[in-house]
Parts: sequence; C-alpha cells; structure tokens
Amino acid sequence: MVLSALDFVLASKKREIIDLQQLLQMGQLVGAVSQLIHVLQRERGSSNIYLCSQGEIWGDQLSERALQVQLAEQAVNQHLIALDLSGHALNGHTVANASRLFSRIATVLHSLSTLPPLRQQIQTLNISQPDAMNHYSEVIRTHLALVFEAADTSGDPTVSRALLAMFSFMQGKELAGQERALGAAGFAGQYFDEHAHQQLLALIEGQERCFQTFTEFADPRALALWRQQIRADSSEFERFRRIACTCTTTNAEACDMALRWFDVTTVRIDAMKTVEDVLEGILMECCRQRIRDAEVSCALQQQEIGQMPQQDNHYAALIPPQLSRAILELVEQQSRQLQALDAELAGLRTTLAERKLVERAKGWLMQYQGMTEPQAHKTLRDMAMNQNKKLPQIAEAMLSVAEVLARKGI
Amino acid sequence: MVLSALDFVLASKKREIIDLQQLLQMGQLVGAVSQLIHVLQRERGSSNIYLCSQGEIWGDQLSERALQVQLAEQAVNQHLIALDLSGHALNGHTVANASRLFSRIATVLHSLSTLPPLRQQIQTLNISQPDAMNHYSEVIRTHLALVFEAADTSGDPTVSRALLAMFSFMQGKELAGQERALGAAGFAGQYFDEHAHQQLLALIEGQERCFQTFTEFADPRALALWRQQIRADSSEFERFRRIACTCTTTNAEACDMALRWFDVTTVRIDAMKTVEDVLEGILMECCRQRIRDAEVSCALQQQEIGQMPQQDNHYAALIPPQLSRAILELVEQQSRQLQALDAELAGLRTTLAERKLVERAKGWLMQYQGMTEPQAHKTLRDMAMNQNKKLPQIAEAMLSVAEVLARKGI
Repeated sequence: MVLSALDFVLASKKREIIDLQQLLQMGQLVGAVSQLIHVLQRERGSSNIYLCSQGEIWGDQLSERALQVQLAEQAVNQHLIALDLSGHALNGHTVANASRLFSRIATVLHSLSTLPPLRQQIQTLNISQPDAMNHYSEVIRTHLALVFEAADTSGDPTVSRALLAMFSFMQGKELAGQERALGAAGFAGQYFDEHAHQQLLALIEGQERCFQTFTEFADPRALALWRQQIRADSSEFERFRRIACTCTTTNAEACDMALRWFDVTTVRIDAMKTVEDVLEGILMECCRQRIRDAEVSCALQQQEIGQMPQQDNHYAALIPPQLSRAILELVEQQSRQLQALDAELAGLRTTLAERKLVERAKGWLMQYQGMTEPQAHKTLRDMAMNQNKKLPQIAEAMLSVAEVLARKGI
Repeated sequence: MVLSALDFVLASKKREIIDLQQLLQMGQLVGAVSQLIHVLQRERGSSNIYLCSQGEIWGDQLSERALQVQLAEQAVNQHLIALDLSGHALNGHTVANASRLFSRIATVLHSLSTLPPLRQQIQTLNISQPDAMNHYSEVIRTHLALVFEAADTSGDPTVSRALLAMFSFMQGKELAGQERALGAAGFAGQYFDEHAHQQLLALIEGQERCFQTFTEFADPRALALWRQQIRADSSEFERFRRIACTCTTTNAEACDMALRWFDVTTVRIDAMKTVEDVLEGILMECCRQRIRDAEVSCALQQQEIGQMPQQDNHYAALIPPQLSRAILELVEQQSRQLQALDAELAGLRTTLAERKLVERAKGWLMQYQGMTEPQAHKTLRDMAMNQNKKLPQIAEAMLSVAEVLARKGI
C-alpha cells in the first residue's frame, strides 16, 4: 500500500473534526462540573450557618443540599462514562492529554468520596466551622483544577479563549463563595478579628483579579451580562462588606445579620451562575460552529478530490502537472487553515502553560502549607517581587522544590 | 455504572504508557525521515555537479541516487501506514496533534511526487542549477517541518528535549548540505560573486546557530561525539571555505576543485549523519526507558489496588478512613508524577511554540518571497532589532499578515 498526499489531507481534516467533537464533549463535562461546584458551594454555605448557629438553624436544609450535590455528581458521572477509559469511545478516539485529565478526575472522585463522613461530622457538630469550610473548599479546588486541565486539551484558539474565560470566572465565583462563608461565620459570631479582615480583603482582591482575566478572554455577550450584574450589586452588599472588613464587633442581632448577609451574597453568587451558564452556552456554540465549518470544508475537499482524474497511486508514476497543482492547492489549503490557528494558539498556550504553573504552585502551598488561595497568591507574588522575577518563574522554582520534598516523603 | 477514583488512576497511568508508545512510533518515523533527507541531500549534490558540468560528469550516479531516495521513501511509507489514518491503530489510539501531523505528511508526500518530473528535467539539462537546487531544498524543508511537528506531539520533557536536539541538528546539517551545493556550483563555474559570498557566510552562520541550539538540548553522549567531529574537521575544508567566501575567481582546474570540495564536505556531512543516528538511538532509548518506568509504576499500582479490601463502589457508601487514605496516596502519587513532568514541560513548550512560530514565518518567507533560509532568518532578525521586539513576536505578526494575504489569494 502506498499512501498519497490526498489520503493525509483528508485524514488531517477528519481528525480536526474529531478533535473538535472531543472539545465539545469536554465542554459538556465542564458544564456539569460547573453545576456540581455551584451546589457544593451552597452546601458549604448551609453547613456553615448550621455550624455557626451550633445546630440551631438550617439543620433541615442539610439533607436537601447533600441530595442536590449527589444529583449533580450523577450528571458528572454520566459525562465521565462517555469519556471512555479504555480508549474505544466516540469514533474510537480518546481525548487529548488524557493521562493528565484522568489523574485530575481521580482526584475529584476521591475528594467527593470524603463528603459522606464530613456530612456526618457536621450533622453531629463534631467539626469546627473553619475545618468544615476548608474541607469543602479543598473539594471544590480539585474540581476547578479539572476544569483548568480540560482547557489544556484544546487545539483551537477560539475554544481555548472560551475555556480560559470560563475557568477564570469560575475561580472568581469560588472566591465569592469563600467570602460568603467567612462573612457568615463572622456575622454569626458577632466578631471579625484582624486575621479575618485580611482574609476578606484578600478574597475581594482575588475576585477582582479573576474577573479581570475573565474580561480579557470573554465573549462580548458574557461580558455585557457580567457588567450589567456588577452595576446591580446592591448597596446593602457593599455596606455589609465594609462592616465585615473594618469593624471588629457587629451590634445587630447576630443571627439576623448572618442570614441577611448570606441572602445578599447568595443573590450575587446565583447571578454569577447565570453568567457562567452563558459562558458555557457560548463555549458549546463555539465548538458546534467550528465543527460545522470543518465539516463543510471537509465536504468541499472530498468533492474536489472526486473531480480529479483517477491516477495510478504509485509514487514512481509521473503525475500530470495540472493534477499536481490541484493536489498542491488542497494540501496547502489545509496547511494554511491549521497554521492560521497555530499563530494565535502559540500565544494562548504560553499564557495557559504559565497560568497552569502558577495554579499548581498555589495548589501545593494550599495543600501542604495550609494556606488559603489568596495567601498562596500573595506568597508567590511577594517572592516574585522580592526576587525581581515573574510569577511563572517563581512557580516553576517552587514546584521543583515541592517535587524534591515529595520524593523525600516530607 | 459508577466510576471510582481508582478507575481513573489506572486509566491515567495506562494512557501515559500509550502516549509514550506513540512517541516511540513518532521517533521511528523521525528516524526514517532523517535517512530520507540524507539521501535527498546526496541526490541534490550529485544533480548539482551534473548540471554544473553541463552533463559531463556524474550522469551515471543520478539513477543510483534516485533509487536510494525511493528506497528511503518506501521505509518512510511503512511508518506512515503504521500511523493509521482511520484512527484504529496501535491499541486503538491515534497520535496526539494528528490533524497537524497529517497535514505536514500530506505536504511531504506531495513534494516527493514532484521529484520524478524534476529528475527528467535534470537528466535532459532542461533546468538551471539554482532552480534544481531550490526545488530539492524545498522538498527537504517540508521533511524538516514534519520532524518539527512530531516534536510537538511529545508530552514528556526528556523526549521533547531529545526531539528538539535532533531537529536542530538536522536543520544544521541541511544548511551544511546547501553550503556544499552552493560551493560546488561556484568551484565548478570558477566564480563566486558578492551574492554567493553573502549566501555562503549566511549558511555558515546559520549552521552555527542550529548547532548552538543542539548543544542546549542534546544528550552528553551525542554532544561528545559532535565535539570530537568538529575537531576533526579538516584544514582543507577550512581553506576551501575561505576561498569560496572571499575570492571571486578560483585558479585551479574547475572540475577538480569542485569534486574535491564536494568530497571534503561530503565527509563532513556523512559524519553529521552518524551524530544524527546517535541522536535517534538516544531518542528511542529514552522512550523505551520511560515506557519501562511507567509499566513498573503501573504494575505496582495494580498490586496495591489488588491488596485493598473489596468495597461497594457506590459513592453514597462510606469508605473506611484507612482505605480512603490508601486510595488518596495512589491518587496523589499519580498526580505528583505527572506534575513533576509538567513543570519542566511548560518551559519547553514555550520554547517549542516560539520556535515553531519562527520556523513557520521563515517557511512563509521562503515559499512566497523566494528567500533562502538564512535570508529569511536575517529578515526576521533585522525586523526584530529595528522594532525592538523578540523574534517570536515578529514571527507571529508576520504570520497574521501572511494569513490575510492568503485569504485575498495574493
């Protein structure tokens, strides 16, 4: 058998379509994970209020929240089954970057398996509010890491942008969720110490950072919706924020304040979820449009090839010059289409690789040094400033050290 | 069906092994392409002498050279068949980045199909020496672009390094081949004009640049062999180089000089091929070692999982804390192993993405603006210096412009 240039042109276009279909599948998984994170954030909030009130209020909500998480888990599970571990799924192809993606999924599934014992501890008030909150936040962090890994499977710049926008937004929303939980605990306890003030300020700053990245990569429609919602942020929310960030003791009825804060922040976070849903829709639409474009292009290719006169495929044979030019045009067309994507993708990949390093270094500081996300970010940023280096460089250095420590079993 | 963390840990490790097996396959293809390039360079050289001597000498060599190219083509074809266009090959997986790789292969196969008419023109002296040389160089360039694309399929930093070292070396060797051809034409014609001097100097500088990159990424064994060969470069070669780069007319018998130059440079280029073969061997060894490591690690994982007490897989079930810790250890181990690779890979990918941009911009200048490789490099470098930007930035800007020009059909 001798393969010709045309065989590979067609194979290249077909593989492009398959890659895009896999991206679509990845986008659907990300959507399901976004929903799971949302209900986990709610469960964390309710558990928080329950623990802060010493089990006085919202005990009746806990099982409902847990049920919602389980339903969302089931939806994610459906997408995981479709991923095909053996490698014989959708058209016989597995996703790109599968080993890393699967490793992230393993971490997610393990973190979810730690929820039932956590719920028991909460129900019986056998865990402190900060410990319970940290446990939930860690579970959510493993989910965000999965979304970030999914963003790295994309070989299409438009889709990469949509995934980056979505990931940044989800990260910002999670910091908003942590702010909600921390504030609720403070208002319920009628007390914010200096440490709490610092944490809250760092969470607010962290949100701004994430939403800034989101605006860099987001589609105009999602951006417009988000800007509209920022303007709608209630003045009550800002007043609460000011109290939480500056006052040491709060005077009003503790329980009322806490519940009101929770309601106000929940409205804000639910509004974020609607933006997230729009982002998800745009991501899907973007994948589907690219698939349609590639399919049209593939059909045109096949048509042109069909119109070419039959030729002996053997390479020693002389191909007539006219036919050779027609083949060259097809070969170059496919090459040009891919290269046009590559130029933009190269810059995005660098951005993504750098952000990935920073996320991992933060993850390590959080997991092994017990820092919060904003603390981990501040640590890296301070190191970068002191050593006059860029954040990704510092992150890379830190991960090399982390690896040595891990090898020594420290 | 409910999938557990352990299912995905095992799937992650298995997929890691499959990815490495594909890299091995890719390495074998690169080896076959390296051999094909080598015989193409020889055919270019012989055709060159034949054309310069107005068909007086080496006419008898041409068919032998063409036959060697055809044999090397057949060897490459065997590897292409193994690549599996439909996507059901080796363990049911296709290579990463397949659409881009296949597009490059299409370009290679098309360029090879243009050789038979070129050979006819050469045989019948119906083509000028520079045109024939450019045609061969363009065919070789499509092969180098394929090797570069193959380097981008690697998700393993050690293998990426080996591939980058090999690609840079092959690029340097090709410039040495162009120097041989240009010098042979000059000596045969007893004349080097100012343009030829500049071209030769640029080719020498280009070789140094490529071998510099090679030394950055190469294995010490290949490096030692290369350093040994540099020292062995004959003084006769350096004397020839000096004459070609500085003198306008050469005094000795034209044909003797040309043939002697050709012999001396061929010894040098053949020595480069032995280094290239060592690089190829190291690449293969590196893939095989990584596969063995991953297989051992996979067997250990399976053993540990086998020793775990059976558990109900349903996520609502409570997993005993001891078992949960054992699972966590496995999940984290796999995640750590991948992250250790990622930190190094991130830097390499950036390097690779940047080099890819520069290679593509050069390719465009060569293909559509009729420049040689050194001219294209100089053009980009001068633009970068004038605009105080980095080479990859300039390349990216140029490719965007190229895309617009292509759309307009210019």
